[in-house]
Amino acid sequence: MPAEKRWAIGIDLGGTKTIVARVDGGGKIGRMLRIPTNAAKGAAAVKQGLIEAIRELLKGSGRPPAGIGVGIAGQVDPETGAVKFAPNLGWHHEPFGEDLKKALGLPVGVINDVRAATWGEWLYGAGKGCQDLLCLFVGTGIGGGVVSGGKVLTGCSNTAGELGHITIDLHGPPCHCGNRGCMEALAGGWAIALQAREKVTSDPKAGEAILKKADGRADQITAKIVAAAAKAGDPLALALLDRVALALAAGSASLVNAFNPCRIIFGGGVIEGYPRLIGKVARGLKGRALPPALDSLRVGRSELGADAGVAGSAALVMHL
Amino acid sequence: MPAEKRWAIGIDLGGTKTIVARVDGGGKIGRMLRIPTNAAKGAAAVKQGLIEAIRELLKGSGRPPAGIGVGIAGQVDPETGAVKFAPNLGWHHEPFGEDLKKALGLPVGVINDVRAATWGEWLYGAGKGCQDLLCLFVGTGIGGGVVSGGKVLTGCSNTAGELGHITIDLHGPPCHCGNRGCMEALAGGWAIALQAREKVTSDPKAGEAILKKADGRADQITAKIVAAAAKAGDPLALALLDRVALALAAGSASLVNAFNPCRIIFGGGVIEGYPRLIGKVARGLKGRALPPALDSLRVGRSELGADAGVAGSAALVMHL
Repeated sequence: MPAEKRWAIGIDLGGTKTIVARVDGGGKIGRMLRIPTNAAKGAAAVKQGLIEAIRELLKGSGRPPAGIGVGIAGQVDPETGAVKFAPNLGWHHEPFGEDLKKALGLPVGVINDVRAATWGEWLYGAGKGCQDLLCLFVGTGIGGGVVSGGKVLTGCSNTAGELGHITIDLHGPPCHCGNRGCMEALAGGWAIALQAREKVTSDPKAGEAILKKADGRADQITAKIVAAAAKAGDPLALALLDRVALALAAGSASLVNAFNPCRIIFGGGVIEGYPRLIGKVARGLKGRALPPALDSLRVGRSELGADAGVAGSAALVMHL
Repeated sequence: MPAEKRWAIGIDLGGTKTIVARVDGGGKIGRMLRIPTNAAKGAAAVKQGLIEAIRELLKGSGRPPAGIGVGIAGQVDPETGAVKFAPNLGWHHEPFGEDLKKALGLPVGVINDVRAATWGEWLYGAGKGCQDLLCLFVGTGIGGGVVSGGKVLTGCSNTAGELGHITIDLHGPPCHCGNRGCMEALAGGWAIALQAREKVTSDPKAGEAILKKADGRADQITAKIVAAAAKAGDPLALALLDRVALALAAGSASLVNAFNPCRIIFGGGVIEGYPRLIGKVARGLKGRALPPALDSLRVGRSELGADAGVAGSAALVMHL
């Protein structure tokens, strides 16, 4: 079937919210349902909620979809569609894709959510037409995806692209992963919030503007609040985000030297909250990345935003 | 022609010495000539020396070779065989492969020397049969090569695999590349020598054993001397190499998380001089790399040593 006549259902299965949408062969998103994930009710309830939403989207559709693609934060087995480990959902070795397939009688593809977003940006977004692409999604954590020589890299055990966990400061602060000085531990949303809370607590005067936006409670400070304070010109917030840009530039230089991408695309909540970071990182890359790798590099911003995952997971079953 | 009947000439073109050898389809090295490169005499003299050595190896060979593969420290254009930049030879935009081809009437392939060594280890050495392989050559500098999904990564402008220039300490010492805190700037041979010279100068008593091996001249200390002192149990040399192991472990953790290789292979002069580094790095990787990436990883040592480049550059014209 020609691409323009194909369609699929794309799913972005998050820890609290889930998006289920119709996606056409060009990556255009049609009807979209937002449902609670209900992770606390257990895996059976999560699957049941998904099945109902999918059935709703299948109603009156005429042509059957190419299949169902699901992006999920965790490690998956691409062959069986099983979820090996998904901390947000509390799942270990959950037979996920197979159960959906049995219930719906349609092909089901399961993929890591960040890799799905990379597919989305590559096929339909800011990475279109590019054979060597690197996507860096800076949200609460930092994840990434790599296209090299026209192929999405998967690695030996399907975990390639853990770009947030490259070490940029071997004596740096501890990371959630157990290592220290990871790019995520200096520039991920959780790390930004942590740094802001510490600064505000140790220097309440400098932290006034940030603290005010958090209703006076340091433990309520988020990366979003820091970004808002920076936009309003608060010096502490600006200094914190300059440190974030430095960390992202150092990490990106490593990735540019190692992968030599034609394009590096930044997305995720922290970038969306403070897009000026991209320009700062691009400037920081000069003098850090090797000139021949830098000469062929373009730095850009995600085009699909939060839709990248849904579009990419649907693409998985349409194109692969 | 079946692989076992093919042969090629492999060349490792270094800044001072050059190796020219017959290599069979199984990567076995036959007759080998070692010639001075004569870089100071200019590009024409270097090419003439190579042509004479190649003609010598072609004598009485019966079957013609599949071609001539040349590994060279620098950036090359794989399409034309031109050398874009080779600092050791003082070459800029030198029409190298084409000139050799004209003179000899044989196919000529030109490749970066570290990538050639990666091909060698992959096809004939410690990486045999592996679809996701990472080679790290720790010599005076640090270079690398990556095989992912059964393909050697080349990147957007053929510079992928500059693994020595990943940042592991964003506040670290300056690197020759212009950045600071690169893995090479903490663990490359030149950096080991530099650290040893500084320590020996600032603390001559602790530096006694190392200094003695350098005939009392701090400026004559090399990484090789530090390795020899460490083997003899010198505490300062052991401490310096522990720092090198830490840097290599931090950098390798980044690479394991980013590429998710099945095998990581260490080679190069620093490793050959002190092979115990491999065990130290393997232990350091635990607790640094992500468990799912670590679970599927094997850490090993180069099998071809200095022959990897010659075997790999010959493979380039036999297999590609």
